Amino acid sequence: MSPLAVDVAVVHALDEDLGRAGDVTSVATIPRGTPGRAWIVARRAGVIAGLPFAEAAFRKLAPDIEITSHIRDGAKVDAKAAVMMISGDARAMLSAERVALNFVGHLSGIATATAAFVQRIAHTKARICCTRKTTPGLRALQKYAVRCGGGFNHRFGLDDAMLIKDNHSAVACGIRAVLERAKASAGHLVKIEIEVENLDQLEEVLETGIADAVTLDNMDTAAMRKAVAMVAGHLMIEASGGITLETCAAIAETGVDYLSSGAITHSAPNLDVGLDTEI
Amino acid sequence: MSPLAVDVAVVHALDEDLGRAGDVTSVATIPRGTPGRAWIVARRAGVIAGLPFAEAAFRKLAPDIEITSHIRDGAKVDAKAAVMMISGDARAMLSAERVALNFVGHLSGIATATAAFVQRIAHTKARICCTRKTTPGLRALQKYAVRCGGGFNHRFGLDDAMLIKDNHSAVACGIRAVLERAKASAGHLVKIEIEVENLDQLEEVLETGIADAVTLDNMDTAAMRKAVAMVAGHLMIEASGGITLETCAAIAETGVDYLSSGAITHSAPNLDVGLDTEI
Amino acid sequence: MSPLAVDVAVVHALDEDLGRAGDVTSVATIPRGTPGRAWIVARRAGVIAGLPFAEAAFRKLAPDIEITSHIRDGAKVDAKAAVMMISGDARAMLSAERVALNFVGHLSGIATATAAFVQRIAHTKARICCTRKTTPGLRALQKYAVRCGGGFNHRFGLDDAMLIKDNHSAVACGIRAVLERAKASAGHLVKIEIEVENLDQLEEVLETGIADAVTLDNMDTAAMRKAVAMVAGHLMIEASGGITLETCAAIAETGVDYLSSGAITHSAPNLDVGLDTEI
Amino acid sequence: MSPLAVDVAVVHALDEDLGRAGDVTSVATIPRGTPGRAWIVARRAGVIAGLPFAEAAFRKLAPDIEITSHIRDGAKVDAKAAVMMISGDARAMLSAERVALNFVGHLSGIATATAAFVQRIAHTKARICCTRKTTPGLRALQKYAVRCGGGFNHRFGLDDAMLIKDNHSAVACGIRAVLERAKASAGHLVKIEIEVENLDQLEEVLETGIADAVTLDNMDTAAMRKAVAMVAGHLMIEASGGITLETCAAIAETGVDYLSSGAITHSAPNLDVGLDTEI
Amino acid sequence: MSPLAVDVAVVHALDEDLGRAGDVTSVATIPRGTPGRAWIVARRAGVIAGLPFAEAAFRKLAPDIEITSHIRDGAKVDAKAAVMMISGDARAMLSAERVALNFVGHLSGIATATAAFVQRIAHTKARICCTRKTTPGLRALQKYAVRCGGGFNHRFGLDDAMLIKDNHSAVACGIRAVLERAKASAGHLVKIEIEVENLDQLEEVLETGIADAVTLDNMDTAAMRKAVAMVAGHLMIEASGGITLETCAAIAETGVDYLSSGAITHSAPNLDVGLDTEI
Amino acid sequence: MSPLAVDVAVVHALDEDLGRAGDVTSVATIPRGTPGRAWIVARRAGVIAGLPFAEAAFRKLAPDIEITSHIRDGAKVDAKAAVMMISGDARAMLSAERVALNFVGHLSGIATATAAFVQRIAHTKARICCTRKTTPGLRALQKYAVRCGGGFNHRFGLDDAMLIKDNHSAVACGIRAVLERAKASAGHLVKIEIEVENLDQLEEVLETGIADAVTLDNMDTAAMRKAVAMVAGHLMIEASGGITLETCAAIAETGVDYLSSGAITHSAPNLDVGLDTEI
Repeated sequence: MSPLAVDVAVVHALDEDLGRAGDVTSVATIPRGTPGRAWIVARRAGVIAGLPFAEAAFRKLAPDIEITSHIRDGAKVDAKAAVMMISGDARAMLSAERVALNFVGHLSGIATATAAFVQRIAHTKARICCTRKTTPGLRALQKYAVRCGGGFNHRFGLDDAMLIKDNHSAVACGIRAVLERAKASAGHLVKIEIEVENLDQLEEVLETGIADAVTLDNMDTAAMRKAVAMVAGHLMIEASGGITLETCAAIAETGVDYLSSGAITHSAPNLDVGLDTEI
Repeated sequence: MSPLAVDVAVVHALDEDLGRAGDVTSVATIPRGTPGRAWIVARRAGVIAGLPFAEAAFRKLAPDIEITSHIRDGAKVDAKAAVMMISGDARAMLSAERVALNFVGHLSGIATATAAFVQRIAHTKARICCTRKTTPGLRALQKYAVRCGGGFNHRFGLDDAMLIKDNHSAVACGIRAVLERAKASAGHLVKIEIEVENLDQLEEVLETGIADAVTLDNMDTAAMRKAVAMVAGHLMIEASGGITLETCAAIAETGVDYLSSGAITHSAPNLDVGLDTEI
Repeated sequence: MSPLAVDVAVVHALDEDLGRAGDVTSVATIPRGTPGRAWIVARRAGVIAGLPFAEAAFRKLAPDIEITSHIRDGAKVDAKAAVMMISGDARAMLSAERVALNFVGHLSGIATATAAFVQRIAHTKARICCTRKTTPGLRALQKYAVRCGGGFNHRFGLDDAMLIKDNHSAVACGIRAVLERAKASAGHLVKIEIEVENLDQLEEVLETGIADAVTLDNMDTAAMRKAVAMVAGHLMIEASGGITLETCAAIAETGVDYLSSGAITHSAPNLDVGLDTEI
Repeated sequence: MSPLAVDVAVVHALDEDLGRAGDVTSVATIPRGTPGRAWIVARRAGVIAGLPFAEAAFRKLAPDIEITSHIRDGAKVDAKAAVMMISGDARAMLSAERVALNFVGHLSGIATATAAFVQRIAHTKARICCTRKTTPGLRALQKYAVRCGGGFNHRFGLDDAMLIKDNHSAVACGIRAVLERAKASAGHLVKIEIEVENLDQLEEVLETGIADAVTLDNMDTAAMRKAVAMVAGHLMIEASGGITLETCAAIAETGVDYLSSGAITHSAPNLDVGLDTEI
Repeated sequence: MSPLAVDVAVVHALDEDLGRAGDVTSVATIPRGTPGRAWIVARRAGVIAGLPFAEAAFRKLAPDIEITSHIRDGAKVDAKAAVMMISGDARAMLSAERVALNFVGHLSGIATATAAFVQRIAHTKARICCTRKTTPGLRALQKYAVRCGGGFNHRFGLDDAMLIKDNHSAVACGIRAVLERAKASAGHLVKIEIEVENLDQLEEVLETGIADAVTLDNMDTAAMRKAVAMVAGHLMIEASGGITLETCAAIAETGVDYLSSGAITHSAPNLDVGLDTEI
Repeated sequence: MSPLAVDVAVVHALDEDLGRAGDVTSVATIPRGTPGRAWIVARRAGVIAGLPFAEAAFRKLAPDIEITSHIRDGAKVDAKAAVMMISGDARAMLSAERVALNFVGHLSGIATATAAFVQRIAHTKARICCTRKTTPGLRALQKYAVRCGGGFNHRFGLDDAMLIKDNHSAVACGIRAVLERAKASAGHLVKIEIEVENLDQLEEVLETGIADAVTLDNMDTAAMRKAVAMVAGHLMIEASGGITLETCAAIAETGVDYLSSGAITHSAPNLDVGLDTEI
């Protein structure tokens, strides 16, 4: 993540939490200048992501707060591991606490979910990737968390590659026609991927020689295996559709290149993280 | 949700998905002016939330698209239920599809998770409420989804009530002192809630006569029952800490007023929704 | 005020004043790098508010300018008191001058007006509070100035408490009905206040036992006195309607808890402040 | 005001008032779709300004609300005059009420204060103008209100004319030098005004033949009269410094062209306006 | 361009031109409600781009203005051709005139410059493409204009493909190493292009089998011809470096796939367009 | 340029280039922390403008990068001159490179084009000025570049002076009428310029004694000479209409005060600048 993007996200989240009147509780109860120390602690084992966001949240409210961290985003930690130490103004610390934890909890949740998939298919050459099924407004952050978990990113938006789905093919009257339209329009740095539902469609795709990648949509592993053989390395192959931790190894073993999962971004539970304080 | 807030969220999400070049696939493959029809369909049973966001997403890209819906946010639907019909320009429909579904899937997921808790405690007077453990940038939307699911909202931010936690009490040297500081600072429309970890602390709170509400933090149900008796209706009581679908009924039966859950906002899985098209 | 909110307001005000071409006079007439010194001086006695805004205005245009101030927002000063010393780049100083003074003059005006009320009722337990009758876009700043003047804040917006007015009661067919609707909808951290115009209405409110606070709208002091007796400490009482410096003491002596005034925010004259320079 | 500027100001003010959760009282107590009618009424006589802002506030929350108004900004109205009729959704009407009234009350206050000055000097050729002493963030709106009241606008910002003050002259070592620097830098559409404190300085200004206008800073009327004679129509003359309703006529009668007042923008009390409803 | 992107650009440009006080000339001299008619006319022959921006500019200031256009962006027009007819409020028309013309003049200039290149190489299979050498803040608009002129788009930003330059290769210690790093990091929809300065480097690139495209940086046509033969259709080939209208045909005839030009975006002169009015 | 304006423009341009995923190539290929050094070098002789933008671009991505420059905006440089040295994090340097160069190339192009005109008329008293024919969104920057090249600025927008064109005069029924309307509306710091197409119109303008400046629209030099004689120093005279490097000297020699050119902003080719690196 660029520091600019971290900044925008953190300012937005602080605005959301501080509202119009700020942290009225801490202002009322904690004398100005009270010092404190705190640790962000993982309550469960997982893969950490979001520390630059947490750091920015504390710094925005107290520019000279001291922050120490011995780990980086992408690190695996055990339960009870302290992942960041914060020392300085106690009011600012408590005011920024929830925002900092919300970032780390959410992004570490995604990284942890991704890493679980990655581990299950580590014996194959396949990679896990995300989709555009992300939480509105958080796509770049969630895709960053996927990378922290060892996954790869699919398209960031409708504009950074062509992905031809059944609707596009239907309107264009068939696979050859739709691929030719795509080729006529795409520049030389735009990849073209097309979704197929069966091997006949795959055959058509291969005949055109136009696509860079193909999505096997909801096929069984037997069909995938045949698809891999048919493609023979000429295209990247993505398996898609309801892939779970339970089914991913078998799918990866068919020889496909990528397994895409919406669940790792839109349905990963938070990693439980908390703030232990000494004030 | 005010129409202004819906607008801001949808424009932001469309920008995120359309990027700098827009939906290059649909522009390349679907002729300008091709008509189409589509239905947002719930793939699983659940409580729907987010339809105004979906509607706004389609209208932003095609102002005169036709949208029909026989249900409102908050409705329970069965699997395979069509929740919205869209008719008009096919390109705009496909370009807005993912944004519309991401809103409905995410918010319906929260509404559905909330409703599951609500149902388990329907035989008691207790209410389910959310927390500030929300996804950064999406708090108002997620809290709206909680209401759609039959839940109630806790604070929207650090500024709209005082919630005194153990750190605040510690710095202020005790419960009476911290409550007096809070009272001295709070206006007449600011409620004061204080977190207690045991019944001795609760006793202290009750003696001051200052608080409006108390959070029982991670107490067992036996202690909660005693707390309810001690409070005797003089304060609102919120039970907090790791409440699950399995444990909520027993907690609600102790007589507490509110059960708060971070999981319904930060860890609810998406409700699976899709777009069925006729183009 | 959080440093984030100060920043946003100051950048906006500087943009407004610098326009598209900047301070063309100072650029044309003052050589780059000319040093200078200046003092913000109160031309009249009053309560100061807005110094962090003035400081931010100077720093935005000259990050390493030197600023010294021996007083804090909320301080009472005499006429001719210097409230801030600025030393550094003369161009930046003159370019930021008007923005800095506009903040301090406006906010100190509100603080001073508020303090005048506070002083008049200091012999009672009553508090002065503001309303939502604020200048568009400046609510949080004006409410901060009210606090600097010793006043308390009413609602920051339509969303942070319920305030039931005659229209709401009329639509809902009466006081009991409207309060029950409010209670059914409000979470445990949302206070409910209701406006009454006579003692019969107050009686109804008391019978429901639902409200947290009541607004006595344009009652005379005799009625207020009776209202105080009827309420007997069970609700917070706010007196409202055309309260002036002349009438406030008598109203406060009736025993009400709060006197609310729109005039302290929307009609307080600026405190006259100027910049004395040595360039 | 351009419709774009009205829009930005109104959306900002609505956001400020609706906050994160919206008008919780009206949502709780007024059934969806309840119709209503209302009139913005001037409680006191004055000059109205701000109606397009009020209209926009209602329309933003209810696009098809019906609005009728027989007067335009700039009209003089008597106490109890209805200035706008609104008919439609009652919830939206009450939710937008305060924002609409805050705009009309604030801007009409400025227009009314300006008009009072204008009337006092109507027998002379002098004009009233505002200054840059405005409320931060509201300059364009306040200057619009000045025009509604019959006044004229001074600079909108530091960039749209040169106004040379004593500091600029001091740094540049005198009036001739500073005017020559200004002339060397200013394009042909940038006016140059210079502030003088006595007639000797005025003499120097006249000798250079460079300035377009001169500010007589805190001079007495005798000196002003002499200044008018010296200038003999070659420059525009602005009288400045503590001008009040009481002193303005005598100043205008000296023959100066403009009287500038900061008080009409920064210290004008709101015009009292309210909403009468039939719901 | 999505309607959202058009909207943002036009509002920004109108704000820039209307400033704080709006079109003071037209307000002073043209009575409210004066009708008028106008035509955007090309003063020289060229390819038109930007009409949706012009239309939006007029509509923003007068929502019910009538606009008729018989041509679309991308059309070639002769000198004196009317490209859009506008009918309605004369004030709004004049206030929006310059913004509308600035968009059409700038974007048509780029489209026309692009089309000139396209025409010169029409007898080959090569395509013209743009670069990231665009005017800050206008990239998406300029790339749209390139498409209107018949060109293709290179990367929209640093994030939508990998383009390995000599610096990247140098740090990574060589072409094979840098391509392997790229491959390890890129997902399946990210193309990899690498810049080479001579045929030895190209040979290395071909040996790795990793890249999707290669940029021939400032090679002569003899070298390009050899490169085309070496590549034999396995990679897309982009010729880059100081390509002009005079040299492009010879380059295209070497068999390369793309010719990239920064000049078509950063140095295309405006197409001269004006507004003919009947008011 | 104020530092605030530089900041806004640079952040916007970086966002545009970094997109949602950032500089994927440099992240993949350059190890975190690799140091480097680079020089912005002018490939051709010209007048430099935009260095503060370049500096800000590098600093935004690497706050502690070291930047040295011995020249300032407005300096004339020879081909191959190094204009800025950057030393620090290599990744940040490469990620900011294109944005930095795009600013310097574009603004230096305008400064260089302006300086060419300035040089041609240096033997006269005439000045070169720009117009409102600027690239949408970049007006303040382009006008700054004009100043760097030795030119002067015309209006920044429709709001900072009155410029009466033929349409305004036509609607107002003549030159006297339109000037009187303008005078009635304009404050004392708003200049009034009027466009004339022949000497009869100029005569009318002179008779009114109202205008501050006049634009001679597309007149030949003989007519200009007569106009200069007629005006006799009572108005500023601007010559306008298709002025080129070839024609400007003859026009300036007629005695007009200003020559305005749209081409110096909307059609100036970039100055060729590049980044030489040592990484």
